[in-house]
Amino acid sequence: MNEKRATGRGFGSDNQSGAHPRMLEAVTQANSGHAAAYGADPWCERASDSLRTLFGAHTDVYFALTGTGANVIALGSLCRPWDSVICPETAHINSDECAAPERVAGIKIVPVATSDGKLTLDLVRPHLTGFGNEHHAQPRVISISQATEYGTVYTAAEVRALADIAHEHGMVVHMDGARLANAAAFLGVPVREFTVDAGVDVLCFGGTKNGMLMGEVVLFFGNARNEVAPYMRKQATQLASKLRYVGAQFEGMLDHGLWLQLAAHANAMARRIAEGAQRIPGVRVTRAVQANEVFAVLPREVIAPLQDEFRFYTWDEAEGEVRWVTSWDSEPGDVDAMLARLQTLVGV
Amino acid sequence: MNEKRATGRGFGSDNQSGAHPRMLEAVTQANSGHAAAYGADPWCERASDSLRTLFGAHTDVYFALTGTGANVIALGSLCRPWDSVICPETAHINSDECAAPERVAGIKIVPVATSDGKLTLDLVRPHLTGFGNEHHAQPRVISISQATEYGTVYTAAEVRALADIAHEHGMVVHMDGARLANAAAFLGVPVREFTVDAGVDVLCFGGTKNGMLMGEVVLFFGNARNEVAPYMRKQATQLASKLRYVGAQFEGMLDHGLWLQLAAHANAMARRIAEGAQRIPGVRVTRAVQANEVFAVLPREVIAPLQDEFRFYTWDEAEGEVRWVTSWDSEPGDVDAMLARLQTLVGV
Amino acid sequence: MNEKRATGRGFGSDNQSGAHPRMLEAVTQANSGHAAAYGADPWCERASDSLRTLFGAHTDVYFALTGTGANVIALGSLCRPWDSVICPETAHINSDECAAPERVAGIKIVPVATSDGKLTLDLVRPHLTGFGNEHHAQPRVISISQATEYGTVYTAAEVRALADIAHEHGMVVHMDGARLANAAAFLGVPVREFTVDAGVDVLCFGGTKNGMLMGEVVLFFGNARNEVAPYMRKQATQLASKLRYVGAQFEGMLDHGLWLQLAAHANAMARRIAEGAQRIPGVRVTRAVQANEVFAVLPREVIAPLQDEFRFYTWDEAEGEVRWVTSWDSEPGDVDAMLARLQTLVGV
Amino acid sequence: MNEKRATGRGFGSDNQSGAHPRMLEAVTQANSGHAAAYGADPWCERASDSLRTLFGAHTDVYFALTGTGANVIALGSLCRPWDSVICPETAHINSDECAAPERVAGIKIVPVATSDGKLTLDLVRPHLTGFGNEHHAQPRVISISQATEYGTVYTAAEVRALADIAHEHGMVVHMDGARLANAAAFLGVPVREFTVDAGVDVLCFGGTKNGMLMGEVVLFFGNARNEVAPYMRKQATQLASKLRYVGAQFEGMLDHGLWLQLAAHANAMARRIAEGAQRIPGVRVTRAVQANEVFAVLPREVIAPLQDEFRFYTWDEAEGEVRWVTSWDSEPGDVDAMLARLQTLVGV
Repeated sequence: MNEKRATGRGFGSDNQSGAHPRMLEAVTQANSGHAAAYGADPWCERASDSLRTLFGAHTDVYFALTGTGANVIALGSLCRPWDSVICPETAHINSDECAAPERVAGIKIVPVATSDGKLTLDLVRPHLTGFGNEHHAQPRVISISQATEYGTVYTAAEVRALADIAHEHGMVVHMDGARLANAAAFLGVPVREFTVDAGVDVLCFGGTKNGMLMGEVVLFFGNARNEVAPYMRKQATQLASKLRYVGAQFEGMLDHGLWLQLAAHANAMARRIAEGAQRIPGVRVTRAVQANEVFAVLPREVIAPLQDEFRFYTWDEAEGEVRWVTSWDSEPGDVDAMLARLQTLVGV
Repeated sequence: MNEKRATGRGFGSDNQSGAHPRMLEAVTQANSGHAAAYGADPWCERASDSLRTLFGAHTDVYFALTGTGANVIALGSLCRPWDSVICPETAHINSDECAAPERVAGIKIVPVATSDGKLTLDLVRPHLTGFGNEHHAQPRVISISQATEYGTVYTAAEVRALADIAHEHGMVVHMDGARLANAAAFLGVPVREFTVDAGVDVLCFGGTKNGMLMGEVVLFFGNARNEVAPYMRKQATQLASKLRYVGAQFEGMLDHGLWLQLAAHANAMARRIAEGAQRIPGVRVTRAVQANEVFAVLPREVIAPLQDEFRFYTWDEAEGEVRWVTSWDSEPGDVDAMLARLQTLVGV
Repeated sequence: MNEKRATGRGFGSDNQSGAHPRMLEAVTQANSGHAAAYGADPWCERASDSLRTLFGAHTDVYFALTGTGANVIALGSLCRPWDSVICPETAHINSDECAAPERVAGIKIVPVATSDGKLTLDLVRPHLTGFGNEHHAQPRVISISQATEYGTVYTAAEVRALADIAHEHGMVVHMDGARLANAAAFLGVPVREFTVDAGVDVLCFGGTKNGMLMGEVVLFFGNARNEVAPYMRKQATQLASKLRYVGAQFEGMLDHGLWLQLAAHANAMARRIAEGAQRIPGVRVTRAVQANEVFAVLPREVIAPLQDEFRFYTWDEAEGEVRWVTSWDSEPGDVDAMLARLQTLVGV
Repeated sequence: MNEKRATGRGFGSDNQSGAHPRMLEAVTQANSGHAAAYGADPWCERASDSLRTLFGAHTDVYFALTGTGANVIALGSLCRPWDSVICPETAHINSDECAAPERVAGIKIVPVATSDGKLTLDLVRPHLTGFGNEHHAQPRVISISQATEYGTVYTAAEVRALADIAHEHGMVVHMDGARLANAAAFLGVPVREFTVDAGVDVLCFGGTKNGMLMGEVVLFFGNARNEVAPYMRKQATQLASKLRYVGAQFEGMLDHGLWLQLAAHANAMARRIAEGAQRIPGVRVTRAVQANEVFAVLPREVIAPLQDEFRFYTWDEAEGEVRWVTSWDSEPGDVDAMLARLQTLVGV
């Protein structure tokens, strides 16, 4: 990917946006005197309660700071050093975490090529081998991203099928939900339905990309709850002392469904891009637009000029494919301005 | 340590305090639209400039999130997996980081017993052996805490002596400055004098304990600057996407010396505790009070009742030694109230 | 793979054979009184000299015990924890070492699907990305097996092409030569030609599969020579105290080209199997037979009865593909007896 | 330690000796045709049976290659990455394994200063803290060497006391028995009495220093038996394919108590040195001589001349303390020659 600098709101990534005003309010309200450090504070406790309301009482809650950190806590708590994690080749844990999962969680990654960023039973099955063989890393986790790095979304049934095959083999399912809110908004069903109720064992629920200053949370469900996650979080250097500021943001985000509203808005802006773009001659939207990402092939010569004014990444130089990501703060006017400029550049 | 719950401002730890109002302002001002992620934003750039003004142009700057994270970045960037780090037994990296330095930085720790939390040449020398011997981990770092975990402070000359012996052996000096501001306020000399100018190679400069919401920074000086720290930071899961909020806080903290004012105040409050406490019969202040920590032996029976009203830790159950830590927001009234209660409990 | 027990010499693996008598002689001759431990003995020194005669003066020599150990020493000495190793999906380091390379060498593996166990420029190129990007593990090594796990062999020109592209990107080439002797015997050129002279930077030269009791050696060439390999070997737990017994075996093996004679014999026995097998109706040899391995699809119903008498593995249950591996001690009579039994089982 | 080269049998280390002739016979007898690799061979099976006869039926047996390898298998199988191992500062795992335990077993080491290389309850107790506290590595193992690196030996009662306190805290006891045979010969009781029956959970039983070519074995007892050791052994790169040669040596060693005879002889030679040395004016034996090591302070000026003729290490340059280690092949004449030379050098 190439990054081009441009001013103003763009479509480079949802992590280039700032924080929603309610998040600043939450932080400010939490800034009241002394509180026990490391998460034993009222804000983290209330946010944990909200999360248990959402995902069920049998949920263990560990707040964290970064997406990579959350994934490492999740995987490192459930794996031993000879365990492997089956994931799409495009998974963030494989492609964008600089081998932190291997080094810090202490796992082997088994990447699987996919067409759309999603694992299927047929893709997973060939890798369910070597159990009990000391020469092979032991398959322990099936890891999926919801939404995926291509903006696609698993249905509850698709998650269930993967969870069933995992559990049949004594394995567990990890869901990297850096964009969980966008998936939930797309699916339009209660978040439990495609997570804990579909057999997910550990979920990384992201806040940063959906309007927080910074904040993620790792949720272990049912039998995957364990006593080692506190140590794994500390070793992963993710245990902030003033964790109340993360807890307070989650409390605010879960209040009245703000998290879903923000994600639904971002998704709508992505659809607006896709619908407009595919009407422009020479532009082809290349992947299903389900969450808040749009991939498209543009005439090669218009990419750079467009990036001069609007932030976004070239995803595949060879193909001329670009990626636009929308955010909680994307506005229809932002979308329309970019589409207009694209139309102009394409000419006709 | 035992923790007792009490309401209100206490002396449990400087990380139990909240954030200074200027930090919230800084965060709010940085919350303006989109910005490049991962530190390539104007706030981080300006804060880096401020840090280079303070420590010299030959300084590489890596913002981080937690103290353990900063230490891991520092050590992991300068060490190979067969390298060892000589530090006081009481060092945070040895005693309070759950083996994260061993696991994530990939080092061996060589702990040294000290009387006051400070290394000396005589303490270090016996461990400067085994160079070039494949059976021994290779001594690579002398690590010191400034201020130490006992609230004591190294003079510039003391740092210089350790740096000289380190450099003579091809080693480097790491300074864990989670409480660097308190040390600087105590010494009353420019911070360069006892860090980079005294031969320190890598410094973890803490913000969280001195009034930030969350924020640390790793500074590599001179020849210790390196090209691997970016990868180490990413692997350590410390690379936040919206890093601008950390940069903005450092910018605000360094503006007009706020960091030193806050630390000087905390130090003064510690002295106020110490001076008052040692006038109370049966109470003995056990360590030099130089930064913002006071250690004292109390009559064993008064500890629990006092903790019912004021947060603080019992440091050494066997000795009846307690630890009081002051913060940027400690007030003389807080101190006096605790001392009055202590006086009452002691009776007479 | 399924293993069936059978008595006598079989084709299960070259590591199921014993040691050549000259190896026992070498060990016995080395058993003479005291000698410095850890490789500073006359036998290791003479064997090192022989290896430098074979591979050139600019060769650093580290004796080791197991193939996995040798690979870990090679990779761990040349990589930092954020580095990645591109290799065929079928590579021993990816498929048969239980994540030891990830855990102990501290690397990320990037497996590449191949048709015949060999990397090509076209297969490698898409993975030469992300240099300098802190979010990506840094491509550092192209690792190839010579001969491959499929018994195929790289020509010197093929190795050269991979080495050139590696070096253009600041990377290095690792050759896993657990069956290097078989490749050398097949190619019929001096071993230097397709290793150090073709640009290989580090070579694991295996002895165990070619008639030693136990013994491997890691050879670093030219600029890849380094000062850290001794520590990496010790940490990998591969530094035996009585290393003289490994050195003595290498000395014996290199004397008068015994290593090549043994490998040439094993290769010939593999060809004898292949030639006979492909004449049997219903039997199809599936891969080029270049070294000492033969892969073939058999009528499914004859596999188990044949394994009752002759050791060999089923490679691919789904396909009915089996693997026969010949050894230094395989005899024409062994081959002919198995072929005769196979002929009988197939019927006609 | 300084090493001086000298010819002939010396007292540098028991790992500088060769192999007992019966070991070569065992290896030769095992060199008969093909056998299943990786320990599934008749020699390893018979040796395992012999070990279970010696240590009890509830013993899991894992053959290994090096002492460091065996220790890593033992510790890595019983620990998680946040666990710590309490051991004497002088323990081989702390001082002579180049941080392999930290890196490969993935532990934190807590070294304890001792007077004689032996842990005691009083030395251990202060470190039994931090259980359940996520900021602290979790105390998991008490590790002792039997015999110690100073040639001292724990009685069964001393082992029992340490095991009891370990088990009370949910911890386990690891015994590094690189010189277990020497301890057994000294104590004169069945080896079970001071190992499994005294509460030891995992034992590394060394063969190399007691007359093998190469060979160690890790024994897990009772509840410490586990299903992960096979993976840990493979990852530690200790799983040799032709493991039968190690099994055969153990079989030979355990036959008719050869291991005890060899160790008893070495111990007797150490006593002969000690008795002779302490009669020489100016020579002071500094530690209890219980196993096969003698430590003594010599007049500084005689050390180098004596090393010109007899291999041994200077242990403590500052003190002028040397270490003599005897072996299974040390002869009275060797001892007497060295003592005579020492007498001459000291003069009178």
